[in-house]
Amino acid sequence: MSDTPDLPASVATMMAEDRASASMGMTVDEAGEGRAVVRMRIGPEMVNGHAIAHGGLVFALADTAFACACNSFGPPTVAAAAEIVFVSPGRLDDELVAEANLRTRFGRTGIYDVTVRCGQEVVAEFRGRSHQLVEPRDSA
Amino acid sequence: MSDTPDLPASVATMMAEDRASASMGMTVDEAGEGRAVVRMRIGPEMVNGHAIAHGGLVFALADTAFACACNSFGPPTVAAAAEIVFVSPGRLDDELVAEANLRTRFGRTGIYDVTVRCGQEVVAEFRGRSHQLVEPRDSA
Amino acid sequence: MSDTPDLPASVATMMAEDRASASMGMTVDEAGEGRAVVRMRIGPEMVNGHAIAHGGLVFALADTAFACACNSFGPPTVAAAAEIVFVSPGRLDDELVAEANLRTRFGRTGIYDVTVRCGQEVVAEFRGRSHQLVEPRDSA
Amino acid sequence: MSDTPDLPASVATMMAEDRASASMGMTVDEAGEGRAVVRMRIGPEMVNGHAIAHGGLVFALADTAFACACNSFGPPTVAAAAEIVFVSPGRLDDELVAEANLRTRFGRTGIYDVTVRCGQEVVAEFRGRSHQLVEPRDSA
Repeated sequence: MSDTPDLPASVATMMAEDRASASMGMTVDEAGEGRAVVRMRIGPEMVNGHAIAHGGLVFALADTAFACACNSFGPPTVAAAAEIVFVSPGRLDDELVAEANLRTRFGRTGIYDVTVRCGQEVVAEFRGRSHQLVEPRDSA
Repeated sequence: MSDTPDLPASVATMMAEDRASASMGMTVDEAGEGRAVVRMRIGPEMVNGHAIAHGGLVFALADTAFACACNSFGPPTVAAAAEIVFVSPGRLDDELVAEANLRTRFGRTGIYDVTVRCGQEVVAEFRGRSHQLVEPRDSA
Repeated sequence: MSDTPDLPASVATMMAEDRASASMGMTVDEAGEGRAVVRMRIGPEMVNGHAIAHGGLVFALADTAFACACNSFGPPTVAAAAEIVFVSPGRLDDELVAEANLRTRFGRTGIYDVTVRCGQEVVAEFRGRSHQLVEPRDSA
Repeated sequence: MSDTPDLPASVATMMAEDRASASMGMTVDEAGEGRAVVRMRIGPEMVNGHAIAHGGLVFALADTAFACACNSFGPPTVAAAAEIVFVSPGRLDDELVAEANLRTRFGRTGIYDVTVRCGQEVVAEFRGRSHQLVEPRDSA
């Protein structure tokens, strides 16, 4: 598609196979060098019993942004753990934008911060720990 | 339905309105007194680019079990924060079962532990912090 | 000493070299099989500007209980990460007791829950992730 | 003292009463507007059984930096929860520097990131959640 951003091959391949993120309607705005921006609109199938976006789906958006950021370097890398603070509720039809940034890397581990916003308002703060599946060459 | 478990009214009402959990195919096995068990089958729309269940959906299952457990007492209660450790991957067609248990309550806050399993194998360990929206009567 | 509990050798050795825990006056009541109980009295050098026990020292007590529990199996194991929720303040002269229990182990990782209490009252809930320094024999 | 930095009154008062931080030898380099820098040297009473700085004391340093940052605005504010990832060990005689920065505030809650370094090397990444004891005027 003409408006597809220029993603690192590792991220483009991963997202092409990621049916979960696709079925939630996520799109990657940018990804590269430990950084990614992913967006998602809160559809009618995404709200919970308190009429707000299900926390799991807000988490899922942050988690996908995190996955794009930590796979932007190339070697396959998975989420090992994460924590999230829900700051304000997402609501039906809100477009949420998750911005992930690398905080620090050591060995096969990375720590990434992801902020989920709706416009200027912070919806959630997420911090994830990634684990690179393949031993880096330097330390092999 | 004849096989619907006998849920607290607060949980039954919440889940009846929770389109997100329903669209992910979650069912509540039991809920009550700070405890809940919820299950979900990993469908083809739930796997990610590493051919394993999207972490966000494993989180969502744990989060719904957490919501059932913390709303089992009656007053509306929401997730304020959570952390998850991914122990082993969920895979296509796995049936995941999340068991939530209250650890401690103080003021309007509760801490709940949720273990997600596939059979006997642990898939994820989750800990959530809940926030009761209405001031408890005792402390009002 | 006649009142020293019968600790696993790995824990006894570790604690004998742990000047930090000793200088905070911590004593190990029991340790073994992924479990430990450690106590500490809040002295005048341990209170902060809000006249309550410094959160870092409550954390330190939980962390030592966690270290005893995760080293009870033998192989040297360190804390990789932890999170703590402060439930109620510890105060001058309180005797705090931290009880650590293994929740789950996988590969070289362990997850432990530690509850810090003063009498029956919960002071803090801690969850730690341990990392075993030596590869286990089974997976080597 | 002539080299005492110009701290907000709320932080200066808090630190003057904080015997715990003083007994660990912590000094505040700067504090203000949701930000603080605190340093501490790892003394012989601060190392553990693996000959590295006790994780609880690294946490304590981060926690004090966090306390200075979240009290820099004036109203008394306490740590409600925190999580820490241990990146590299602190060692005897290392001078550790913790830098705390506000990430986001909502209601009476704040989220702060604290990085602990020894020189350029990251020793730990900490994220804390603060709770303001007095209701803010705007929302009262």
